[in-house]
Amino acid sequence: MIDMSSGLSCPLPITDYKQILLAHGGGGTLTQQLVRKMFLSQFQNSYLEPLHDGAVITIGGARLAFSTDSYVVNPIFFPGGDIGELAVNGTVNDLAMCGARPLYLSAGFIIEEGLAMEDLWRVVLSMQEAAKSAGVLLVTGDTKVVDRGKGDKIFINTSGIGVIDEGIDVTPKRARPGDRVILSGPIALHGIAVMSMREGLEFETQIKSDTAALNSLVMDMINASKDIHVLRDPTRGGIASALNEIAGSAHVGIEVVEEKIPIPDDVKGACEILGLDPLYVANEGKLIAFVAPEAADAVLASMRKNRYGTDAVVIGEAVAAHAGIVIMTTAIGGHRVVDMLSGEQLPRIC
Amino acid sequence: MIDMSSGLSCPLPITDYKQILLAHGGGGTLTQQLVRKMFLSQFQNSYLEPLHDGAVITIGGARLAFSTDSYVVNPIFFPGGDIGELAVNGTVNDLAMCGARPLYLSAGFIIEEGLAMEDLWRVVLSMQEAAKSAGVLLVTGDTKVVDRGKGDKIFINTSGIGVIDEGIDVTPKRARPGDRVILSGPIALHGIAVMSMREGLEFETQIKSDTAALNSLVMDMINASKDIHVLRDPTRGGIASALNEIAGSAHVGIEVVEEKIPIPDDVKGACEILGLDPLYVANEGKLIAFVAPEAADAVLASMRKNRYGTDAVVIGEAVAAHAGIVIMTTAIGGHRVVDMLSGEQLPRIC
Repeated sequence: MIDMSSGLSCPLPITDYKQILLAHGGGGTLTQQLVRKMFLSQFQNSYLEPLHDGAVITIGGARLAFSTDSYVVNPIFFPGGDIGELAVNGTVNDLAMCGARPLYLSAGFIIEEGLAMEDLWRVVLSMQEAAKSAGVLLVTGDTKVVDRGKGDKIFINTSGIGVIDEGIDVTPKRARPGDRVILSGPIALHGIAVMSMREGLEFETQIKSDTAALNSLVMDMINASKDIHVLRDPTRGGIASALNEIAGSAHVGIEVVEEKIPIPDDVKGACEILGLDPLYVANEGKLIAFVAPEAADAVLASMRKNRYGTDAVVIGEAVAAHAGIVIMTTAIGGHRVVDMLSGEQLPRIC
Repeated sequence: MIDMSSGLSCPLPITDYKQILLAHGGGGTLTQQLVRKMFLSQFQNSYLEPLHDGAVITIGGARLAFSTDSYVVNPIFFPGGDIGELAVNGTVNDLAMCGARPLYLSAGFIIEEGLAMEDLWRVVLSMQEAAKSAGVLLVTGDTKVVDRGKGDKIFINTSGIGVIDEGIDVTPKRARPGDRVILSGPIALHGIAVMSMREGLEFETQIKSDTAALNSLVMDMINASKDIHVLRDPTRGGIASALNEIAGSAHVGIEVVEEKIPIPDDVKGACEILGLDPLYVANEGKLIAFVAPEAADAVLASMRKNRYGTDAVVIGEAVAAHAGIVIMTTAIGGHRVVDMLSGEQLPRIC
């Protein structure tokens, strides 16, 4: 236990907030500040690379990716998926974004007293289905129950281990000028599916979450070329936050073309009704890749053959200018700076 | 997503409860039933050994232990520790109980909106202190924030990876008749420390949680002898539940002697006031070992030299008779069956 009465050696880092806000979990600016000031300042080590989806560790000659994610999505069942499937796919994707082959997952359940046994069963079946489909095994777990009103139905943590094969080096720091920025398909589906349900909105066609395990897509891409520098699944904070994080990590500028970014019409409509910018809305089955220019065609072709990359497209490139800043050429030919998400537009979306 | 409308292939397993009760998280009979009927029935694989503290997996020639645990203790600061320290030590111990050297931990935070930044900072400092003391690195993390009233200050999941050295094979299944049962020190401190605070009880001396990382103790034991068959930290459900789980896994009987089990007087007094049986109260810095009889003296001697095992003592042995059942010789010379914890006596103790 830390004696806080002395407290002089480790004062609370300067922060503008005396309490945690929802926005601290939003994946945007405040999340970054919290992670940097609170966690990274203390847990300093070379593995803890800021803002990567997992840590890369070496054990017995093997390079492993190790990742963790907690899922608190509300509602727990939503169009196109549920919290169980999301928890498996999300951690599989975090490992895949390190260039790893995901192998083993853990599952930690925090259940609110009173959860219907039937609901838990649906979640468990869904996790097993997702694990089987992604080719990973759930090998260890833990269950806690909290009193009614001290949780919200069910929260699930999944952590995972994957193996990174020889010659693969995928990390946000590796983006460099000239890299093509590839997006694997249409954006904002997951966030809008969850929000529509929460807000009771109905559209002509039901918008479904894109939750999916992307490890097979990543393996196809790696088989096409090892010159993949960065992989990132744009979840909380959407593609805008993901691109900003990469620009910051690699000290490059990023230029994207609005017209190239696929957004389904019904998603656009929902975003207008909800007052959301689709660039900031969470995805759960999409990835962004930074690929050496000479490898881009081969990687793109390999993606389009995979069911999770049929609509893959180059949306822009990394540049030497305006390091750390993401600029979008708009549909009408103007330019706008695409910032990190500030504040919180979509609490508890994943 | 699972289509539940058909639902015929995977009906909800027969259970006596339509909703989750607090007791499903208590570490006793209902927790076992939930784990067996819900989780093990679906997530079937050879790694998922029922009731072991972690999974043992082989990657690149190395045997690794992989473990996960969520911490929901209430209150988050208690005499002798806090949720951060507990989260680090608990997962370090789960790995150590697999005979592994714990190396890397992840940390997943689920924070309730409104948590004082100062409290989060105390928890983070405490985690880092505990990690340093145990010789492990926190290498990856995740932060989620849930709306006020949908969580309880902070829940922490820690998952961990450790390496199991050559020649070590520690698992509940390996207990066999003749094995000496060693307990590393006095019991029930953690549970009583937390409960006393929660109930506003005061005793002449403050009872402090025993939270500690036991990996150095385990390494000392292993260096003394490889003939350690089982290691278990008796957390939720206390030593009674831990012994029952081992008896069940290994199909052996267990006989323990009440007088040998060290229980401090103030803990005894608190248990009487609270109506608790100390055998069922959680420990967070103790272990039970099943050791081949010829190795028991050496292992015991090694434990007593370690600061976390100075009071280590043989409390009984495994026997061929009454397989699966734990019998205690009481102080007055009678015998009583020591069952699994049924129901829930101490919610949210860890």
